[in-house]
Amino acid sequence: MRAAVMRHSTLVVDTVPDPVPAEGEVLVKTLACGICGSDLHALKHAAKMVDAARESGMPFALDPGRDVVMGHEFCAEVVDFGPNTSTTLRAGDRVVSMPMLFRNGAIQAVGYSNDVPGGYGELMALSAAIALPVPNGLSTEHAALTEPMAVGVHAVAKARLDANDAPLVVGCGPVGLAVIAALKLRGVEPIVAADFSSKRRALAERLGAHVVVDPAQRPTFEAFNEAASFRPAVVFECVGVPGMLQQIMRQAPLGARLVIAGVCMEDDVIKPIFGINKELSVQFVLGYQPDEFANTLAAIADGRIDVAPLITGRVGVDGVPAAFETLAHPDAHAKILVEPWR
Amino acid sequence: MRAAVMRHSTLVVDTVPDPVPAEGEVLVKTLACGICGSDLHALKHAAKMVDAARESGMPFALDPGRDVVMGHEFCAEVVDFGPNTSTTLRAGDRVVSMPMLFRNGAIQAVGYSNDVPGGYGELMALSAAIALPVPNGLSTEHAALTEPMAVGVHAVAKARLDANDAPLVVGCGPVGLAVIAALKLRGVEPIVAADFSSKRRALAERLGAHVVVDPAQRPTFEAFNEAASFRPAVVFECVGVPGMLQQIMRQAPLGARLVIAGVCMEDDVIKPIFGINKELSVQFVLGYQPDEFANTLAAIADGRIDVAPLITGRVGVDGVPAAFETLAHPDAHAKILVEPWR
Repeated sequence: MRAAVMRHSTLVVDTVPDPVPAEGEVLVKTLACGICGSDLHALKHAAKMVDAARESGMPFALDPGRDVVMGHEFCAEVVDFGPNTSTTLRAGDRVVSMPMLFRNGAIQAVGYSNDVPGGYGELMALSAAIALPVPNGLSTEHAALTEPMAVGVHAVAKARLDANDAPLVVGCGPVGLAVIAALKLRGVEPIVAADFSSKRRALAERLGAHVVVDPAQRPTFEAFNEAASFRPAVVFECVGVPGMLQQIMRQAPLGARLVIAGVCMEDDVIKPIFGINKELSVQFVLGYQPDEFANTLAAIADGRIDVAPLITGRVGVDGVPAAFETLAHPDAHAKILVEPWR
Repeated sequence: MRAAVMRHSTLVVDTVPDPVPAEGEVLVKTLACGICGSDLHALKHAAKMVDAARESGMPFALDPGRDVVMGHEFCAEVVDFGPNTSTTLRAGDRVVSMPMLFRNGAIQAVGYSNDVPGGYGELMALSAAIALPVPNGLSTEHAALTEPMAVGVHAVAKARLDANDAPLVVGCGPVGLAVIAALKLRGVEPIVAADFSSKRRALAERLGAHVVVDPAQRPTFEAFNEAASFRPAVVFECVGVPGMLQQIMRQAPLGARLVIAGVCMEDDVIKPIFGINKELSVQFVLGYQPDEFANTLAAIADGRIDVAPLITGRVGVDGVPAAFETLAHPDAHAKILVEPWR
């Protein structure tokens, strides 16, 4: 099959072996797959990601020296079944799935594996048990946004918001926008969001932010405190670059709770005394639970999360390398979808 | 009066003006005052402390260029009253107090102020409203331990322990020992505590630790996981030097909650990806609430917290500079009390 392949820290388009579904698996055609910021990170820092995972005891055994077909935000169509696979899914069904494949007693991270391809190729093998049918009437491209939006739903769940808490979303890239959508889903008001980009602030408003702040024009926390009337602050860090955590710790009000949804791969410097003086708390978050993933799909399907504004581009497999270049300039796009059969 | 004075980053013993109690204040003789690790920090890093406080928006306006009489862990005897001061306290009463003085609409940090002396001098002015009488039968030296033990009570309260949570105390200096005592007060089992010093591990056991670990002999988290049978981990960081947070983030199990009770004044480097991969949470803590302070005094008075093992030395005002030197070698002592009238 044709696929965009991560090979020695570059992206190349090549023909690779078709995946073969094993028992309990379905073979699917990838209909649409979003490009995630983590994939941009991984292309540059795959070795660091693997080292960090190993150092912290995670079972994540990618070999950056071997080919990887990335892509973990997908909607796909069932075309075949592994041997002895009992499932209610039928050929032609559209599905989404958490990007993990249970095979031989281990979990493969779909999109971050040397052994199974992700959504930047024409075909994938998926575990039938966790593939969710896309409800009738939900478009393929909107269904493909389930995974990134579930990240926001999970981050907000981990924040354990009290009724009086006021959220501030720092950074309105895909992660920040997903957090905003998840906050809106809960009916939280006001949602304050900050980003230097006017396009991203406009997207934040479309996703549900009540107040948007341009930090170049006004200190973020000044605008937040005014909008939130000094209610307890829950700050979602959705930028993920070194220095952001420290900046938020310095500026956050007394007793603020920080939720770290941005993925910073590099070493980061903080002054613990800022945290101590203000009794801050910091909750790091990752991924989502299965129920959160399923609930996100349902919320998109019934219109409670409107993902339409997020889709700003579409490419075929051949266009993936250029799309990665484009996404390095974050102002131009939110989510680019790869459509391998385009 | 005679006092040990912080003057240009050194400690000198000198005669300084007696404090004069204002309205609402009592004049007290300092009977006993513990030397706190924060004071050792402050002597070296007063300017940094002030900068960090200002940068994080705290009202803490110490001028390191002017004299400071430190000491904030005290038991004292009422000897006189400010003008128009209505209080149930009488001359001769022994009191403890949170180290803050409300004067002219501002809060002075007793022990970290240029304007009011702390407990390393013979006399102090205290706000009558927050001075707590020492219950009959409680010794002066044990009452003086109220403040440092309240730090542990508060840290454990902020941890919001669930019934199934298992605590690990990293570092068994005064802060770690206070945390252990507060965990014992709550009936938590098992309490696991780690320190490289055999003397401190022995103290940890006397304060209530069920399992003590020498990290030089066995990895701390291996011993902890065995003792706690993989129950959810709540790790109290009670060392407060750069690198500890990172080390705990690297070793802590999935979903661990970290409570940062050690005071690290320096910049610190972390790998956020460790926190993200394991969805760690980090709660920074400082000080205590008034009810926690009062409850700690009561718990010491009725024997639920046994502070006797903590007191390892006593000095007069003249002995304070040497005591600071001694405490730089943490193995020899837990708490040295200054007795200015000794």
